[in-house]
Formats: sequence, structure tokens, C-alpha cells
Amino acid sequence: MRAPYLLFLGDAALVGMDKMAAGIARWRARDCLAQYRLPGCAFDTGLPDMTPAEAAAAGAGTMVIGVVNVGGVIPDAWVAKIVAALEAGLDVAAGMHQRLADMPAIAEAARRCGRTIHDVRQPTRRFATGTGAKRSGKRLLTVGTDCAVGKKYTALAIEAELRARQVDADFRATGQTGLLIAGRGVVIDAVIADFISGAAEWLSPAAAADHWDVIEGQGSLAHPAYAAVTLGLIHGSQPDALVICHEPGRETLLGLDYPVPSLNALAEMALNAAHLTNPAARAVGISINSSAVPEDALDALVAGIEAETGLPCCDPIRQGVGKIVDLLLAPAA
Amino acid sequence: MRAPYLLFLGDAALVGMDKMAAGIARWRARDCLAQYRLPGCAFDTGLPDMTPAEAAAAGAGTMVIGVVNVGGVIPDAWVAKIVAALEAGLDVAAGMHQRLADMPAIAEAARRCGRTIHDVRQPTRRFATGTGAKRSGKRLLTVGTDCAVGKKYTALAIEAELRARQVDADFRATGQTGLLIAGRGVVIDAVIADFISGAAEWLSPAAAADHWDVIEGQGSLAHPAYAAVTLGLIHGSQPDALVICHEPGRETLLGLDYPVPSLNALAEMALNAAHLTNPAARAVGISINSSAVPEDALDALVAGIEAETGLPCCDPIRQGVGKIVDLLLAPAA
Repeated sequence: MRAPYLLFLGDAALVGMDKMAAGIARWRARDCLAQYRLPGCAFDTGLPDMTPAEAAAAGAGTMVIGVVNVGGVIPDAWVAKIVAALEAGLDVAAGMHQRLADMPAIAEAARRCGRTIHDVRQPTRRFATGTGAKRSGKRLLTVGTDCAVGKKYTALAIEAELRARQVDADFRATGQTGLLIAGRGVVIDAVIADFISGAAEWLSPAAAADHWDVIEGQGSLAHPAYAAVTLGLIHGSQPDALVICHEPGRETLLGLDYPVPSLNALAEMALNAAHLTNPAARAVGISINSSAVPEDALDALVAGIEAETGLPCCDPIRQGVGKIVDLLLAPAA
Repeated sequence: MRAPYLLFLGDAALVGMDKMAAGIARWRARDCLAQYRLPGCAFDTGLPDMTPAEAAAAGAGTMVIGVVNVGGVIPDAWVAKIVAALEAGLDVAAGMHQRLADMPAIAEAARRCGRTIHDVRQPTRRFATGTGAKRSGKRLLTVGTDCAVGKKYTALAIEAELRARQVDADFRATGQTGLLIAGRGVVIDAVIADFISGAAEWLSPAAAADHWDVIEGQGSLAHPAYAAVTLGLIHGSQPDALVICHEPGRETLLGLDYPVPSLNALAEMALNAAHLTNPAARAVGISINSSAVPEDALDALVAGIEAETGLPCCDPIRQGVGKIVDLLLAPAA
């Protein structure tokens, strides 16, 4: 994909819809030039605002659709904006189930303008069904009490912390944003159902005994829409370590009238699931998104979660993930 | 699809590979004319053996690929046989992940001969993501300790028993064989991962309060390759009743070095999963495949399972499913 990027935020306004743009702006900052927002947009990546024409003039190579919406369908209102970006000379990348290349107006504009469309959610290879066979190397997987609670951010922060401590580690992307950040991976929710765990096995292949794959989690075992993807990812990843991601104060699942499970309930579900393919799996920490928590309440919140769960807890943005990595690397008792 | 059918068994020899042909021969017997076996085939549906040319001369309309193999890929050796069937004037139907229509030799032969290819595993519509919203009507789902333990057969037998008792009931197919038997349904393992539970919600829509959907289960929660599909099907089906299917004596999962779980362990896993979207879900019976058990040992086996699980147990082929339906329809205590 041609850098630098113009991040398209559209008119996104619902909680979590900006997570793709926010993730790329944070973890691939060197390749981000500007953002493109439509009236009604409630988000701000902190990048300068530009139209596609302005961004192209400033050297942008690709407009990245940085908005996630349920079902992954591209609204009609965005089509004209995407066509305008192609006409301005930009390539366009998207991570939705609906392929840009399948939308006649967009496909025609790309052909006419000689531009490239990247539908990064589409698997580019076939997978086998899972085998459950044990692989060498070590694996950490982030799991969540809900969607959009920081599973990708936590995995990237743990990869960075491990590397800072001279531990050989690789982030393994399982979502469209992670894939755009890492430049490789598999968008696990776009795989054919029969091959979820097989794709997860492919994603973190056998490795050196002391190498850590840090795998981005997806969905939640407590989520009636996405638990299947989560379970297949757990089984195929064979994690040695789980980090549970959570947003304190969120009471219902994003967009649904279902309760967010307790941390201990989710930990039990995730460990039960993980033990099928790795009986040694253990939880090594709680990663929280505490953005709604005032500074003077953070320590008490963290202490409360640590007392509740018996695990180290931290906000990766405000506090780093050092405590979790300490436990991860501690010699077995 | 043009009836009657010639059921292609190829050179299948591994346990369970014949389940598609066997299911169609049993539950859609009126449309089955003959079977076509290659040297090495270990199965027999009981239908007369014919070549495609003989079957076409006898009035067959469609050759159905009646063999399941891991990964759903069509072996090269079968391609010539499929081409020969098309040249003999038969349509061809298959339920594998790999589409017949994508194989150049087969697609070319179909075009040349003016015949139709049915790739029944491919979803013919888009699905939404699951919502977890409660639907009216009642639902029974079969679950299993492994693959190929009788989940489809049990569901069809329960539909038949309910209808015999004047209860309004519909079998809901979730696999390629079930779909060929019922003429409708969704092959749930071929759906994009993000939409598994949404497809299951679509499959058994809101219905009259006393109507039963009897949903064919898939895979097993204890299976490292297929548990994800099973979980999404459970969540989307919102079952009121679960029937657990099992083959006594099978110690490891088909094709894998993993143990078959105990009936009580599987029941606990399945009920825990089902309670997310239907807190009232309960287990109502154990359905066994006792084909390897001698007649004089069957009563003791059944009694032992009933003592172990506290649930009615029966072999649907040898004993019918009356005991399970008795409990299903019994007034709440």
C-alpha cells in the first residue's frame, strides 16, 4: 500500500466506530498524513483535516477507510467520497466485509483512474481445518469482556514491551486494523467458518522455544454475535497466556442488551476454552481501558480489580503493560 | 435439482465419509435411484450399483457427490468421473467447500453438455451479524460429543416423531446433507465467520408459540477444529432443548488425537453456552449411535447412560426417539 495515508472517518459518531483510524494513527504514525471527516463525525485522530484533493497534493498515496460499522457494509453516502479520492489520484483501502471492488461505481472509477483498491479483509489464501496439534514456541492471546475494549492495543503494547526487554516477540494481527498496522496477518472474522481455528493455527506457526507470538484477540466469548470467532481463535492459537481486556463501567455489550460479564466469569470461560488445546494456559493480567476514569480514581480502580481477580492490572495507555509482562516472564513458582 | 439421484461414493473408505450418501438414501429414499462406487469403496447404501451412463439410461437426473472429506476438497481422481456423468446427461450436485463450478474441466464439461452444477454448500444469500434478540417459538438443537455421531439423523427422527404426535415441527438443515434432504437450510460451516450466529438466527425465525424448530447440530464444542461453528450455531439457535448425540465406545475424536468428552462434560459445556442467549435451555435426552453394540448389550448400555446423565437415552435407529420426545413435551414439573 502506498504511504502516506489519508484516514477517512466519514460521519462516524457511535462509540468504537473510529477504532480502525485511531489504531493506525497510533501504531503506524509514521505513515499517517491527515484525516478526512464528514459533517457529523464525532472523532478526531489528531491528524490535520484534509480533503482527498488536498491530501493528494500533499503527497498522500492511499485513503484508508478508517471506520468500522456493524456488518461491515459500505454506506451509499460514502461511495461518492471514495470515487472522489480515486479521481484525486489516491488508492483506497478498506477492511469491510463488503468489497470495494464489488461496488460498480468504485470499481469503474479505479479502472478509469488507474488506481488500486485494497480490500484487506478478504483472505488471500485458503486455510486447512484445525488439527489441534501442539506447536513449539510460546503464545499470548488477548481476550475481552466485549468488543472494542483494547485487545489490539494491548497486544501491540505487549509486543513493544517484550522487545524492549530483548525478548523475541511478534504481534500477530487478526483484524483489519491490526493487519494494516503490521502489514500481515489474517482477518479472522472474514474466514469461512469451518477454517477459523485452522487459520489461527496458520497465523502463529511453530517457532523457537523462547519466542512469543502476541496474538490480537477478537470479539468476546460472552458476545452472542461474535463468540464463535473468539472460540476458534482461542483453540487455534493454543495460548500459553491470556490477557483479559476490559472497560470498567461498561455495563452492556456494545450495541446489544446483554450484560458485560465479570472479569472472573470471563476469565473462567476463556481458560476453560483454552485448556482444550493447551492445558497449561493461564491468565497473566487484566488490561483496562480507563479513559473515562479520572486520574485520582485510577489507583483505587486498579487495586480493586487486582483484589477481585488476583492478577496484575493496568491501563496500557496510561500505565504501560510492565506489570503484566513481569508476571508473563517470571520463572514458574 | 432433478430427481432421481445417483449417489457417488467414490473410493471412500474412512469412517464417516459416507454420511452424506447414507443420509440422503435414508431420508430422501423416494428420490434415490442408484449408487456409483469406485474400487476401494468400503460403503454400501443398499441401492443398486450403476455407472453414470447406466443411471442416465434408467432415468436419473442428478449425480450427487455423497462423500465428505476433511477440508471439503475434490480429489483429482474424481474429476474424470464427474465429467463422465455430465457427458452422460446428468446434472451434478456437491456439498464441498471447493466449488465444482470453479474447477475448469468440470465447468467446461457442464457448459459443453448443457448440464447444471449445484454447489449446495455455498450460501446463496448474505447474513447479518447475530443480535441475540429473543424470538418466539420453540427450538431444539442436537449437539454432539464429536462429529458424525448422529446429530442430523436424531433431528430428523425427532421432527418425524413430533409430527406423528400432531406437534407442528420443522427440521432445520445446517449441513450439506441436511440441505439436500430438506431442500432448504444453510450450510453453517460455509458461512463467513462473523455471521455464524446471525445465519443461525435467520435459519429458525420467529414462529408460533407452540411450534418446534428441530435444528441439526454441527461439530462439537470439544473439537479443536469445529467448536467455533458449534458455538455460533448454539448462540444463534437459542435452543430451549438440547439433545446430546454420542457414539459409545469411540474414545478419540474422528481423525484427531483428542479424547471424546464424557456425556456430562459435554452437556455442561453445551448448556453453559446455550444459557448465554436462552437462560431456560435444558438437556432433554441422549441419542446414541450403538451400531457397534450387540443386541443383548443394548439395554444395559442405555440404562448405564441414563444413570450417568439422569436423561432419557435411546438409539434413534434401533429404538426410536419416543423417550426423548416424551420428556420434551412433558408439562414443566
